[in-house]
Amino acid sequence: MKLIRFGKEGNEKPGLQQEDGSWIDVSGFGEDYDENFFGTDGIARLASWLETNMGNCPKVSKDTRLGPPMTRPSKIVCVGLNYAQHAAESGMAVPKEPVLFFKATSAVVGPNDDLIIPKGSEKTDWEVELAIVIGKKASYVSEANAYDHVAGYVLHNDYSERAFQIEKEGQWCKGKGCDTFAPIGPYIATKDEIPNPNNLNLWLKLNGEMVQNSSTNDFIFNVQEVVSYISQFMTLLPGDIISTGTPFGVGLGFDPPKYLKPGDVVELGIEGLGSSKQTARAYK
Amino acid sequence: MKLIRFGKEGNEKPGLQQEDGSWIDVSGFGEDYDENFFGTDGIARLASWLETNMGNCPKVSKDTRLGPPMTRPSKIVCVGLNYAQHAAESGMAVPKEPVLFFKATSAVVGPNDDLIIPKGSEKTDWEVELAIVIGKKASYVSEANAYDHVAGYVLHNDYSERAFQIEKEGQWCKGKGCDTFAPIGPYIATKDEIPNPNNLNLWLKLNGEMVQNSSTNDFIFNVQEVVSYISQFMTLLPGDIISTGTPFGVGLGFDPPKYLKPGDVVELGIEGLGSSKQTARAYK
Repeated sequence: MKLIRFGKEGNEKPGLQQEDGSWIDVSGFGEDYDENFFGTDGIARLASWLETNMGNCPKVSKDTRLGPPMTRPSKIVCVGLNYAQHAAESGMAVPKEPVLFFKATSAVVGPNDDLIIPKGSEKTDWEVELAIVIGKKASYVSEANAYDHVAGYVLHNDYSERAFQIEKEGQWCKGKGCDTFAPIGPYIATKDEIPNPNNLNLWLKLNGEMVQNSSTNDFIFNVQEVVSYISQFMTLLPGDIISTGTPFGVGLGFDPPKYLKPGDVVELGIEGLGSSKQTARAYK
Repeated sequence: MKLIRFGKEGNEKPGLQQEDGSWIDVSGFGEDYDENFFGTDGIARLASWLETNMGNCPKVSKDTRLGPPMTRPSKIVCVGLNYAQHAAESGMAVPKEPVLFFKATSAVVGPNDDLIIPKGSEKTDWEVELAIVIGKKASYVSEANAYDHVAGYVLHNDYSERAFQIEKEGQWCKGKGCDTFAPIGPYIATKDEIPNPNNLNLWLKLNGEMVQNSSTNDFIFNVQEVVSYISQFMTLLPGDIISTGTPFGVGLGFDPPKYLKPGDVVELGIEGLGSSKQTARAYK
């Protein structure tokens, strides 16, 4: 299944994208896509509910805004420098174990919402990423069992302000959690739809020009490795997001570096996970 | 007011600590201490409700478990190295601007719950900290207006696994967000109770011996500065926590360093914010 949420910001309802690309409203199921839904086998329960109720689900017009396809997660754990070529363009060594950081969940927006360039920012950059949605509490999970804890996958643009991230004192979080810096969606593809998340093409275009174009088969640490690794340090909760890092081709890696300015259009996609599009605008 | 939450983990109810130290159940008010409560002037509404309903609030036995005094926040933003002497003992320079990092909200527990030493940990350390509870959405807030966005203050032990934090690749989050690493409470003191948060004694004892004993008047960046500073990078939501850093006297600073082992008892407190006590135990 492809889980979507649609409607005005803060008042999204749960829906589904069907095989033909059309959308239906499944709010009649009575649950939103939240920690409780994922943690109580909600995907299977929804599938079973649809067997008898699909026909009564209202259609949703395709000009409706999409929100993030899950309610606010407890955390977004990101893996840094998880593609060798991207580590090189960032001027950093290939890590021997996953580099982790958090993104503020207040940064989450819908997949096609505007990107707001923060006040004073001159180095706002893009990062197409495959994100994992956790389906079951994960603490000290082995790589062999990691997939049991995955609900599905979703497209994420891990926007990053490089001056805030790297030139300011301390940790990366200043440049990773700005408002609108986490467009997520269009939909969560449940894991049955993505037999091998470690071999998906992913791409990003800036104003129509391809700047990132790679495959998750270039991961330094793959999906089962990162789920297992993170669960050694903290409990992952249902609905939590792990963003698995970005491939070569971010603005920081250009010579000279290339950063976003108001009016720029960023489109991105991952095989099997659809595409999203954000227009950059200045904070006002 | 002093806001508490009491009862079994995951099923806490809201209550109040009264002037004489006794506890009452205010679940009859119909709200928990969450984002909506803080963001809709809940403290004032609760005070007004109490004027007519206080007499009907059940007493709560003092042997009841205390939970964290707020529901899970959207984020815990921590300020690192915010006392000069602590920066020195950590072998780090005094920062020119606040160093920020996130703590996983899945680490939050009640003030007197056990500390679980993670698997493989040999360097679990303590950090008494003054935490700020946000009362009103804060984005690009000035220092002059910072207090308008504060709901109150609470005691926090920012447990830290130094090997995970410092010796592992990358950012600090691996050693900061382990389960049970954020005992919060006993209560949130609403800001009217703490006229000057920048001049409070704070202390921590390990097995009865005083190891941290300082004052928030040694802050490098004070409460209004950190609220304003963080709000330049991300929106702080009602109920969010800012932990303002720890003073001199953590285990890392001892020669040789001194870390927690099962059975150790950690007690800590802040003037006006009560005290908490955790017993360390091994993960099993």
